[in-house]
Amino acid sequence: MKAYREMSREELLSRKDELEKQFEDAKGKGLKLDMSRGKPGLEQLDMTMDIMDVLDSKADMRCEEGVDTRNYGLMDGISEAKHLMSDMMGGIPAENVIVYGNSSLSIMYDTVSRCVTHGVLGSTPWCKLDKVKFLCPAPGYDRHFSITELFGIEMITIPMTPEGPDMDLVEKYVSEDPAVKGIWCVPKYSNPQGITYSDETVRRFAALKPAAEDFRIFWDNAYSIHDLYEEQEDIPEILSECEKAGNPDMVYEFSSLSKVTFSGAGIAAFAASRKNVEETKKFMAVMTIGYDKINQLRHVRYFKNVEGLKAHMRKHAAILRPKFEAVLGVLDKELGGLGIGEWTRPRGGYFISFEAMEGCAKAIVAKCKEAGVVMTGAGATFPYGKDPKDSNIRIAPTFPNSEELAAAADLFVLCVKLVSVEKLLAEC
Amino acid sequence: MKAYREMSREELLSRKDELEKQFEDAKGKGLKLDMSRGKPGLEQLDMTMDIMDVLDSKADMRCEEGVDTRNYGLMDGISEAKHLMSDMMGGIPAENVIVYGNSSLSIMYDTVSRCVTHGVLGSTPWCKLDKVKFLCPAPGYDRHFSITELFGIEMITIPMTPEGPDMDLVEKYVSEDPAVKGIWCVPKYSNPQGITYSDETVRRFAALKPAAEDFRIFWDNAYSIHDLYEEQEDIPEILSECEKAGNPDMVYEFSSLSKVTFSGAGIAAFAASRKNVEETKKFMAVMTIGYDKINQLRHVRYFKNVEGLKAHMRKHAAILRPKFEAVLGVLDKELGGLGIGEWTRPRGGYFISFEAMEGCAKAIVAKCKEAGVVMTGAGATFPYGKDPKDSNIRIAPTFPNSEELAAAADLFVLCVKLVSVEKLLAEC
Repeated sequence: MKAYREMSREELLSRKDELEKQFEDAKGKGLKLDMSRGKPGLEQLDMTMDIMDVLDSKADMRCEEGVDTRNYGLMDGISEAKHLMSDMMGGIPAENVIVYGNSSLSIMYDTVSRCVTHGVLGSTPWCKLDKVKFLCPAPGYDRHFSITELFGIEMITIPMTPEGPDMDLVEKYVSEDPAVKGIWCVPKYSNPQGITYSDETVRRFAALKPAAEDFRIFWDNAYSIHDLYEEQEDIPEILSECEKAGNPDMVYEFSSLSKVTFSGAGIAAFAASRKNVEETKKFMAVMTIGYDKINQLRHVRYFKNVEGLKAHMRKHAAILRPKFEAVLGVLDKELGGLGIGEWTRPRGGYFISFEAMEGCAKAIVAKCKEAGVVMTGAGATFPYGKDPKDSNIRIAPTFPNSEELAAAADLFVLCVKLVSVEKLLAEC
Repeated sequence: MKAYREMSREELLSRKDELEKQFEDAKGKGLKLDMSRGKPGLEQLDMTMDIMDVLDSKADMRCEEGVDTRNYGLMDGISEAKHLMSDMMGGIPAENVIVYGNSSLSIMYDTVSRCVTHGVLGSTPWCKLDKVKFLCPAPGYDRHFSITELFGIEMITIPMTPEGPDMDLVEKYVSEDPAVKGIWCVPKYSNPQGITYSDETVRRFAALKPAAEDFRIFWDNAYSIHDLYEEQEDIPEILSECEKAGNPDMVYEFSSLSKVTFSGAGIAAFAASRKNVEETKKFMAVMTIGYDKINQLRHVRYFKNVEGLKAHMRKHAAILRPKFEAVLGVLDKELGGLGIGEWTRPRGGYFISFEAMEGCAKAIVAKCKEAGVVMTGAGATFPYGKDPKDSNIRIAPTFPNSEELAAAADLFVLCVKLVSVEKLLAEC
């Protein structure tokens, strides 16, 4: 393949003509696909349907502690669900875990909101401070950034490296600026790049020396068991690392089964030091009469233990791996050697991250939409929705079936080529 | 029966002796009962178990709109759940309703929290104001008061009348003081007195002329279908009343099925004007990926419509009515004519409210505890947990079985008598 940058103006013009014709054909197909969010596909959902039979009208609805899950009580979750979630998070003691309802995002929102209104372990509420800042490794998860933006928290972009966030920068900000109160992290198979933090990165996180006593790492361990391959990437368990480093209270960890059973109908968990957990429970006692313990029981009876969870996730992998590989195959085949884009090859998680030529992402996403394929909005992976290079695009290959996925991938590479040619022509 | 106040010191002393002996006997029985919270009883929960069969592994999991409830989407609830909840709230248009997760208390907390951090429809966030006040009709629901207390909102007690809160006072505070931003209401079968607001009271609420543009009525319609008798008490639908009175945005309504199916595993709803609902959705889009739609579907498929709900609640009434009547029977028989207490005779809801002689409530609750029966803490029904007269006690007769209930009621009246005698002797 000849790299586009090496083409003459004439070659580019002729390429443009061909691509435009192909694009008109593609538009004619009337595609209507949504690749904007990391949604499980139908096959994954169908595979899990037997969870619906686990609790029927004959079931014993008492949990291990003997409490009736159909009535009030056990605000912080049933014991067996705490154990399941703590094992899933790498063997945290169950007493450091609170099991919530259906959404880890809600826990993160609540946690930030509480820091804003009431502070952290007795510190000044963030709403009383002139300035509060969060570090935002980017590209990252748009919904994290939406939470901090909503509360008027200043977001500072931290570049991602293949080992995780740029830790030199993180250490500098955290140790020097007391207005820096938090950092958003997806440590395993990060959204959207699929990067797993190196052991060194995790340990540098645990050893941070924050200028602010109320600095917290928001550790969104969303994909802890979402491996695509038998050979998995693993991260050190952050709570014990923080404790070893003398920072036991510095991390809030979040986890969820939304992409394990049913999206939005799973269970979610929070883990932290004893002190943080006690503080959280104090607020929970005002916020709620407790979460849905029946759904917690349903999940534990279905999976039994973390081995059951992992066996289930191997079935997910068997469904998802071909989807990731199909998209990567099209990218390799169609864009390899053209010098107009780079992409990640994740070994887990829900996304592939694509780096277009600078200034092309928005135009590519718009082109895709024009022909019926909705991608995540360009820029969404950066704070304030602004990608300074306008180059990152998040690809979510999990939801479409294989036929749709092939059509979408073909369209995507076509749009990348077309926008890139236009860009190069404009530069000539 | 001779009223205690008319007894001589000698009569009281002899009465005290008898009662103390009876109390020692009661302690010897080793009771262990919790009457502190409004929890459904086992029979109610068992009666509902067939809801667990409604969605099994063969079920069609798509809602009316064709959306798969097992995946993300429909943040504000599935359409049929909106209709069910809107009908339950008295025929509100479904577009004015948002269906949430398992807890209406959480919705109230979130709503207050959002007013604190972001204000109401563009007004100044309450956290930026020097003083925010809430009116608290009392005796009232302790968990309401806990929310406003947590946010440092000054609570002003409003006396209850048989028609609802003292509306002269409410109107005065709301129209004169711009720091008054809200009022907590349980309009039907109020917690704990079981008072249903009169039509006149509801209309005076709707016609309030608040000094603060961001004043909101927090209308916790918790017991809208929780009637004990065929002949029900009803209230005018507040949203349309507010609209008629030119105050369409002045009310937030809350509702839940926690005491219809399973406590903490039902579904909850929020209703308000279009403007309020739009604002709420804007924040929800940051807070969550949506609530548990499968549980929403389970509830709608089980009840089908509001008639199904009402039929179900008649079965609850058949279980609960004898419990209420048993307690009332013991109160009538044992305390009638003694002049040491008054009690309500609710036609619905979850509580009976008892007014002891001034200064006796804490002592009565302590005595009950000493003999193994835990009541709601005295004072809990007032802001800051402080009953100025120390006289109100909330009785929750729903959870114990009939045998336990009889034992608990006997103990309760015994403790009332004993504490009252001691009080009168101290005054002699």
